[in-house]
Amino acid sequence: MSPRDLYPTRDATEARLIYRTEDPTVWGSPGYGPLTAEQLDGHERDGFTSIEQLLEPAELADAQAELERLVHDDTLEGDERVVRERASNEVRSVFDVHRLSKFFAELVRDERIVGAARQILGSEVYVHQSRVNSKPGFGGAPFEWHSDFETWHAEDGMPRMRAVSLSLALTENFHFNGSLMIMPGSHRTFVSCVGETPEDNYKSSLKQQEAGVPDQMSVRLLADRHGIHQFTGPAGSAIWFDSNCMHGSNGNITPFPRSNLFIVFNSVDNALVEPYAASSPRPEYLGSRDWEVLR
Amino acid sequence: MSPRDLYPTRDATEARLIYRTEDPTVWGSPGYGPLTAEQLDGHERDGFTSIEQLLEPAELADAQAELERLVHDDTLEGDERVVRERASNEVRSVFDVHRLSKFFAELVRDERIVGAARQILGSEVYVHQSRVNSKPGFGGAPFEWHSDFETWHAEDGMPRMRAVSLSLALTENFHFNGSLMIMPGSHRTFVSCVGETPEDNYKSSLKQQEAGVPDQMSVRLLADRHGIHQFTGPAGSAIWFDSNCMHGSNGNITPFPRSNLFIVFNSVDNALVEPYAASSPRPEYLGSRDWEVLR
Repeated sequence: MSPRDLYPTRDATEARLIYRTEDPTVWGSPGYGPLTAEQLDGHERDGFTSIEQLLEPAELADAQAELERLVHDDTLEGDERVVRERASNEVRSVFDVHRLSKFFAELVRDERIVGAARQILGSEVYVHQSRVNSKPGFGGAPFEWHSDFETWHAEDGMPRMRAVSLSLALTENFHFNGSLMIMPGSHRTFVSCVGETPEDNYKSSLKQQEAGVPDQMSVRLLADRHGIHQFTGPAGSAIWFDSNCMHGSNGNITPFPRSNLFIVFNSVDNALVEPYAASSPRPEYLGSRDWEVLR
Repeated sequence: MSPRDLYPTRDATEARLIYRTEDPTVWGSPGYGPLTAEQLDGHERDGFTSIEQLLEPAELADAQAELERLVHDDTLEGDERVVRERASNEVRSVFDVHRLSKFFAELVRDERIVGAARQILGSEVYVHQSRVNSKPGFGGAPFEWHSDFETWHAEDGMPRMRAVSLSLALTENFHFNGSLMIMPGSHRTFVSCVGETPEDNYKSSLKQQEAGVPDQMSVRLLADRHGIHQFTGPAGSAIWFDSNCMHGSNGNITPFPRSNLFIVFNSVDNALVEPYAASSPRPEYLGSRDWEVLR
């Protein structure tokens, strides 16, 4: 347990808003990576940075093919890293793709990707979690509003807000097929959640979040203050977003599926300790304790 | 029963696509109402017409106040015209508002509204159905893809495609709060649905549609061919759309509710007969058999 917990959560009966005063969003500087000063300023201000085209068409086609291969990989049948939709039993997520797939292992180490992560976090980095999400058409379920950091802090023992996520679109993101919504600027406020973490919470929370859920009053307050930005763009576009962004996505009744690659980078200076609000850490594929520097 | 059923549905085990060859979308002409030639041409082509500002701010405020009054009207407790959300029990729809409310009775007769309905349908008109929808934030449920006409034909006995709906926004419609989606041009294809209509189908179908649901292959085909248009706009904006548009809306996890007034006008020359695919007609508040001309 860390000597002082800057972000107490799941420890009280009332929700609280805690301002982020000690952790910057951008720890590095321009000139030390692929992102421009303007992009870094925007990231500090909004908590996210959009990249119009991260992958070239041929790379994108390879990434899409690799997603298809993983989603239909029979050797992963019964593997807990494969999560299915409750209603249809279709694959919703495959975790640990930077270990399961040589292709994604190399992609994660691509300078356009790991270089930007190092630049934002101002240090060497490792992969805290990776996954591909395949949100089917005709009823893909919503992801309710949440801060990833709240879960990583409470259940994985991530001490500080010094992690960043990459979401790379593998299918076109329309306004109407459940694309990512973020409240710009919400990353500067930590919503301390009520309630205790149930044993093995992750087993149900990946299908439908039930603990670590921000209260409606806080979500409404942040939405009224910051508004909602919804991300659309072709396959191959990407978003970097801070670990504490308040984000979510609606369900998808359209026939158009939504798939993306999701990689969380953490600073090696922010390695996990004991969970702040859970009896034991989540499995390796959800919150890695192997903080080997990415080379 | 009509001598010849142009739009057979719920009578076979395979879905079919039937082209609309005998019923125009616009039956009237420019000069005989508030819509321009350009608007009528667009309506014929796309199946819908957007109106940037149908109500003046003061009228809008009155309409919003009247919605609030209806949603909280204790004298309607237990009235089957009031439909609630399954999960939260919040009011989702109040039907028959042109009878329940003097305000909406007058609004329906406003020349900007009934005049446009007469112009599109090329005849005198009456109200087939009216309602206010109040889709709460934080989990308002989706409306799956459907054609209204399919239900009105099968369950109410509406013979032909000579009806038009007005959806008037009473709150702002964003891309992300479950706003209406239509496939432009889909009104020219009738998706004949499989299965029989259960007894008293309307009692469950208003909360969640289970019969008269177009098959996924047809929905996919129409979406690939026509694309999806999503409607956004401030409170006071409106959409006229044809009875046979393929439409739906996603759920809404945001804190921003979505309310609208919905009025269906039918031509007096298209008055209801016996249902085409149900043992008895739905109640008066869903499919009116009082085709008194609106004055």
